[in-house]
Amino acid sequence: MKVSRRDLLAGAAGVVALGTTSAMQAPTPDTTKVRGKPSRALGQRAATEKIQRQARGVNSSGTPHQDLYGTITPSDLHFERHHGGVPEIDPRSYSLLIHGMVEHPMVFSLADLKRFPAVSRVHFLECSGNFGGRTANVELTPQQLAGLTSTSEWTGVPLATLFREVGASPKATWFLAEGQDAAVMTRSIPVAKAYDDAMIAYGQNGEAIRPEQGYPARLLLPGWEGNSNVKWLRRIELSDRPFMTREETSKYTDPMADGTARIFSFLMDARSLITYPAYPVTLTRGWVEINGIAWTGSGKIERVDVSTDGGATWTAARLQEPVLPKAHTRFRHLWKWAGGEAVIMSRAVDETGYSQPTKDALIAQRGISSVGYHTNPITGWLIRSDGTVVYRAEPWS
Amino acid sequence: MKVSRRDLLAGAAGVVALGTTSAMQAPTPDTTKVRGKPSRALGQRAATEKIQRQARGVNSSGTPHQDLYGTITPSDLHFERHHGGVPEIDPRSYSLLIHGMVEHPMVFSLADLKRFPAVSRVHFLECSGNFGGRTANVELTPQQLAGLTSTSEWTGVPLATLFREVGASPKATWFLAEGQDAAVMTRSIPVAKAYDDAMIAYGQNGEAIRPEQGYPARLLLPGWEGNSNVKWLRRIELSDRPFMTREETSKYTDPMADGTARIFSFLMDARSLITYPAYPVTLTRGWVEINGIAWTGSGKIERVDVSTDGGATWTAARLQEPVLPKAHTRFRHLWKWAGGEAVIMSRAVDETGYSQPTKDALIAQRGISSVGYHTNPITGWLIRSDGTVVYRAEPWS
Repeated sequence: MKVSRRDLLAGAAGVVALGTTSAMQAPTPDTTKVRGKPSRALGQRAATEKIQRQARGVNSSGTPHQDLYGTITPSDLHFERHHGGVPEIDPRSYSLLIHGMVEHPMVFSLADLKRFPAVSRVHFLECSGNFGGRTANVELTPQQLAGLTSTSEWTGVPLATLFREVGASPKATWFLAEGQDAAVMTRSIPVAKAYDDAMIAYGQNGEAIRPEQGYPARLLLPGWEGNSNVKWLRRIELSDRPFMTREETSKYTDPMADGTARIFSFLMDARSLITYPAYPVTLTRGWVEINGIAWTGSGKIERVDVSTDGGATWTAARLQEPVLPKAHTRFRHLWKWAGGEAVIMSRAVDETGYSQPTKDALIAQRGISSVGYHTNPITGWLIRSDGTVVYRAEPWS
Repeated sequence: MKVSRRDLLAGAAGVVALGTTSAMQAPTPDTTKVRGKPSRALGQRAATEKIQRQARGVNSSGTPHQDLYGTITPSDLHFERHHGGVPEIDPRSYSLLIHGMVEHPMVFSLADLKRFPAVSRVHFLECSGNFGGRTANVELTPQQLAGLTSTSEWTGVPLATLFREVGASPKATWFLAEGQDAAVMTRSIPVAKAYDDAMIAYGQNGEAIRPEQGYPARLLLPGWEGNSNVKWLRRIELSDRPFMTREETSKYTDPMADGTARIFSFLMDARSLITYPAYPVTLTRGWVEINGIAWTGSGKIERVDVSTDGGATWTAARLQEPVLPKAHTRFRHLWKWAGGEAVIMSRAVDETGYSQPTKDALIAQRGISSVGYHTNPITGWLIRSDGTVVYRAEPWS
């Protein structure tokens, strides 16, 4: 887009053009006159930065996307979701049992896991229940709308390496992953995922995984719904059929519009979220860089379309390089807000050709009452004439 | 390399093969029987993780590379280096003046800077004095040897955008960058770097830059020596000649072997560091994945060679994808330690063909007495017969 830089300047409220080259605002207090703080063992955020996760009950908290830049989520701001609280596990007594349809059932200590050849990969992790938009409340932040997704650089041992180590039977098609938390979280996972890109992760953003992310080790299934990425992993059992755990029959099954239900809906479909401008920002007129994140469990984001007229017309946004598979991808779109009401929206398209659906398309496929998990509709922010930005709430029934 | 998985298993001390599939070690205490901790506003590290930076006096602290995975450095473990302590700056009163050879001298508030189109890029930052290896002390950690380099995802506005905004004169060839700290840190920078990839950064690893990294905004010159990336940036002045600041005449000038001195040696040349195994690890026999980080200010790392015989022979290591320009790149090399003494070394080669020099080659070019800044020799770790690993100290005079 062709943008006059003078226009850009005019839109940047508060920029002061100086008449002379010598004038400068004096900082208060003058930090050049007093010695600053000495070096510390651990850096801390500036006292003026109030960023934090927002709790959703005792078992969940969301990432404050409205306050974040780029694609990496700081580890202490990664969303958390657990069914029985965060256990404290002594890494020296931690062990992972792999048994069932294997030649050599084995127990691995944490040191054992770390001794195997490792990989590091940047991936998002998203709760399948990551949709807070089924509400009439327009004062909804990106954190409340979709805070249950985060991106980290994960490090660990490929599960395929461990499966070869124990001599997994070629007849094994499913495995059970069991956590060591108070919920003893269990899920059935296709063995094929182990030979694709699953890993046992012990590192996150350069350091040990944080306790609420599964310390000292968790299952990571890139692109698959969060709950299947079992944390505090203590046991894997191989079998030739799924285990039909409590979570699979009581929770993570999706009724469909035609009366049937789908089960084992692991894949997280493409989605996008405008993080700026969004509630509770108040815009000033002029040029604004709309930006946000897009992600898909199916590989790379191919394109993100942005609409500034409520979905009537769409323009492809710029994608921040590098675009990594199964990772948050930052998109940016320069737009001139001339005043007046406007609805801004984003639509993710991934490399398989899948396009993020409208709410109506989603309901047509899934039915109204059932759209609990895997709810990834295009959403919008309403910019009012006075510059306030609110969630564009839509009726869901 | 062809590796028998049985060999790998035999080398993984502590792996227990089970006779039955039902036995499992009971965790102590049983975390499945008690409810865990509730969700929190900010995650914290596990109490069993003692990771921290190591202070070098009041003005410096290093990144603990021996404890890190992957490529991203957690923000609170990014090395710090300052000449007058860490100032506390109120972001509401922060301003950046750009003046000198420009059409419109201007003052930008932090909000102004954030309103411009932004970029996010993963880059290392390294202090030009990042070499602690000129010592007879063999009990040296990777942190002590080369802790003054770290990698972050930086977000900010390209300096080129601001230079176009103020109407920088085509005759301006240098600019002064001045910090707001007690040292009033100042450096002269070629304008060409602004039109290449320099940025005014306000975001680091997804959040606001930490105070010791220049909060609320700093200059970022990807691949150039740390001190030129002026923190707490308050003023940029464009000129047609360098400013010859105190730092440039008293500190950051490098005497050479032929008696001349070089000045404005901004570029950080290619370097590598084995982070595992390294002091203070004790190895057990068998397969071990040697791994570490490599980086170059000249673009991408092309190759990292690893030697396990003190430099007699070299083998190309695997590079962790994605390999990003001017960013730490993780390399991995599987090696079987059969016992006995061994010296392991790594050598980085970048996409320009530059190869990390030996100590002797470095001295031949630069002279013995002067090798203070920009000291990037190939270094080694000595594995003793008992498995202890120490720094392979070399005489430097």
